Amino acid sequence: MGGVASLAGAFRENITMNYCSQCGQPVSLLVPEGDTLPRHVCTGCGTIHYRNPLIVVGAIPVWEGKILLCRRSIEPRKGYWTLPAGFMENDESMQEGAARETREEALADIEVGELFATVNVIHVNQVHIMFLARMLSPEHGPGEESLESELLLPADIPWADLAFPSISFTLERYLQDLERGSFGLHTTTIRRRRSKG
Amino acid sequence: MGGVASLAGAFRENITMNYCSQCGQPVSLLVPEGDTLPRHVCTGCGTIHYRNPLIVVGAIPVWEGKILLCRRSIEPRKGYWTLPAGFMENDESMQEGAARETREEALADIEVGELFATVNVIHVNQVHIMFLARMLSPEHGPGEESLESELLLPADIPWADLAFPSISFTLERYLQDLERGSFGLHTTTIRRRRSKG
Repeated sequence: MGGVASLAGAFRENITMNYCSQCGQPVSLLVPEGDTLPRHVCTGCGTIHYRNPLIVVGAIPVWEGKILLCRRSIEPRKGYWTLPAGFMENDESMQEGAARETREEALADIEVGELFATVNVIHVNQVHIMFLARMLSPEHGPGEESLESELLLPADIPWADLAFPSISFTLERYLQDLERGSFGLHTTTIRRRRSKG
Repeated sequence: MGGVASLAGAFRENITMNYCSQCGQPVSLLVPEGDTLPRHVCTGCGTIHYRNPLIVVGAIPVWEGKILLCRRSIEPRKGYWTLPAGFMENDESMQEGAARETREEALADIEVGELFATVNVIHVNQVHIMFLARMLSPEHGPGEESLESELLLPADIPWADLAFPSISFTLERYLQDLERGSFGLHTTTIRRRRSKG
């Protein structure tokens, strides 16, 4: 995904729901019969519009002991470092999405391996799903959403300049497992209050 | 979730996108600048409306070697057997969602354990995420979305009457791992053509 779409994409949970996407009439927020939560229900055609968490898929691309990171050229967290990751699209698997994001953001081809980390990011209604990955060649570079890409030794990871807590979590656990010599599956939940204003 | 909402929920990917949910103007299907896929873009306010896969979370609730299944009272696959599972909601973790669905569909309390299976269900744009789970008591019963619930020995699983391929996959792998005496993480991808008409 390129600049315009991604920028909107990053904030897609903030799009307000005022009208029915099907018939164009106003929606009301109410608990449908038999449901337990308020939903946006069309006052015209009765369609119930659910809002659900989005999946972010990403990879830990590795080449000869170095990890591929890229520096974001877009908000949120422009200028900070991340593993290649982005919103999963329709008509692809999670693994295909992780490979696509790595191609788009870091211009690198990978073989996606085992699922490594799942992170519930409650305050933005996302689930981040990160896979182990082997780079098929050392080639990489900044895609449209990146300012630069780097293959970094563990000692060179810019911990203070990582873009998201889920990326820090994934990299920390990766290095721990690397030291142990065995890769497991890791999960955590991040809940953070929205900042004011 | 009860009848009306769930029925719509089951088919929520079929809601057509004709109007902008934010401003009510018509949308056009086009590839936004810098993007690679067609999106619904508002002709009025320019908002890009993405459509992304939904997460279904579920559990394999076990009590003294028996597995808790429920028989669906709603479409799709009304009358067929399933593990407790349903759409993940905003403001919850995957694990909380799996416990909530088990309470709602089978009136059972569980302790959610390790992630056991992930299934990309491409033709309906869903990812099914199934967790190991320990029932906190043998109590269970049919919730609003179920006709009945049963604690079943492995030999009594109604293989021919299971509701979804992801449920068959999960139960098959569970029984294999049970026999091995060690539980792993399993993943698969299901692609099926939509039926005609």
